[in-house]
Amino acid sequence: MRSRHLTERKEITLIKDGERLDDLELSNLRIIQNPDKFCFGMDAVLLSGFVAVKQGSRVLDLCTGTGIIPLLLSAKTPAKEITGLEIQEESADMAARSVELNGLNEKIKIVTGDVCEASKLFGKGTFDAVTVNPPYMTGGHGIANPSDTKAVARHEILCTLDDVLRESAAVLKPNGHLFMVHRPFRIAEIIAGMLKYRLEPKRMRLVYPYVTSEPNMVLIEAVKGGRARVTVEKPLIVWKEKDVYSDELKEKYGY
Amino acid sequence: MRSRHLTERKEITLIKDGERLDDLELSNLRIIQNPDKFCFGMDAVLLSGFVAVKQGSRVLDLCTGTGIIPLLLSAKTPAKEITGLEIQEESADMAARSVELNGLNEKIKIVTGDVCEASKLFGKGTFDAVTVNPPYMTGGHGIANPSDTKAVARHEILCTLDDVLRESAAVLKPNGHLFMVHRPFRIAEIIAGMLKYRLEPKRMRLVYPYVTSEPNMVLIEAVKGGRARVTVEKPLIVWKEKDVYSDELKEKYGY
Repeated sequence: MRSRHLTERKEITLIKDGERLDDLELSNLRIIQNPDKFCFGMDAVLLSGFVAVKQGSRVLDLCTGTGIIPLLLSAKTPAKEITGLEIQEESADMAARSVELNGLNEKIKIVTGDVCEASKLFGKGTFDAVTVNPPYMTGGHGIANPSDTKAVARHEILCTLDDVLRESAAVLKPNGHLFMVHRPFRIAEIIAGMLKYRLEPKRMRLVYPYVTSEPNMVLIEAVKGGRARVTVEKPLIVWKEKDVYSDELKEKYGY
Repeated sequence: MRSRHLTERKEITLIKDGERLDDLELSNLRIIQNPDKFCFGMDAVLLSGFVAVKQGSRVLDLCTGTGIIPLLLSAKTPAKEITGLEIQEESADMAARSVELNGLNEKIKIVTGDVCEASKLFGKGTFDAVTVNPPYMTGGHGIANPSDTKAVARHEILCTLDDVLRESAAVLKPNGHLFMVHRPFRIAEIIAGMLKYRLEPKRMRLVYPYVTSEPNMVLIEAVKGGRARVTVEKPLIVWKEKDVYSDELKEKYGY
């Protein structure tokens, strides 16, 4: 996923000052990012590999940022239509330009709006799947600049975990699937919050940087109205040894 | 943990037909078991290594069976007093004879009784820690013989997860600790049930047979009235390769 030299005229007109174009090394996809604002991380990439949706699905990606998850899902899944919702105008604008640049206007729609109002914006029971890489950290206390793009992406300043789960449950069809990546330290809140909205946790995978370290991410799938039974999957180990990615990271994610 | 030849007279009088004496290979501890009934497994041993209690603690082990957890905790922790509660008379009797055989009558008490009435038996807010290796499987439907010792130990015939959590919360002092081993497929129910009784999950560890397999046990610690934040620990891997235990199993648990 390296930056690459811009050659095409169209690309140049779509990219603004301070932004760069990164190659996703997947189906020729590229993404516009601004390294001074917020760049996607491994969490978004791992979530895209954890998502499983059926042919023809309608998918909503909440907190979509610069649209990394819709872009990856367009190549990795047979989803028919992917909508990305983002509250920060600058990020949503970058996401929309990336969609255009990749010629994916037919498949991906970027909407600027508030996750807290997702069910008002899109209607209830309208999506087969929801994906979300939400802000991980509770509260916004002590944040120097709460309007800072990175702070909004990382801290629950504009939406909370409860907002995300409530709206996910509302926009999902019965038996619809929610796919989330989050931090393990919030696993109890995540599970309790899911159950509050009848989102039954069904599949979970912990991401351990090394086989000898604590996990730093959790991938979790819930089904709206599902039965109580969780499959916890084999560990996802990121590094085989220092500076050497695990075979799974290399083979499945192209690291 | 191999059977060993009986030599002492006291041991002979304490052991009944069909029973055997197993060496726990820890502080000269031995346990009486009947292989036709129920023998302890790795889950009890791993739980005993997950438990952390302070000097002088009063500990209650629910569903104690033949007393494996109290015996191991007597050697592994600085607990002052450990009570094992078991509803099946035959198991409780074996546990009590193992306690006597090990000369631990001062430290371990075995009580025959129902976990559903633990707070009536012992009073509310009386223990610093509770440990439990409860039946894992829901319901008892389809069980050929519901009074079979193994069936009662494995299936929720005489007590449910909710019973265990309710009584654990009741007998614990404020800020008391619950340590449980269970199956990962019930993780959502476990967390939701803990929160129902204000037992806040604080520490969790998944046990994976191999680094490439799904976990088959979860170790979880909750604190009565604690704050929401879970530390998920590094994976506990049982087998390094076929027939070779991992270093941790060998070094920490003596396998």
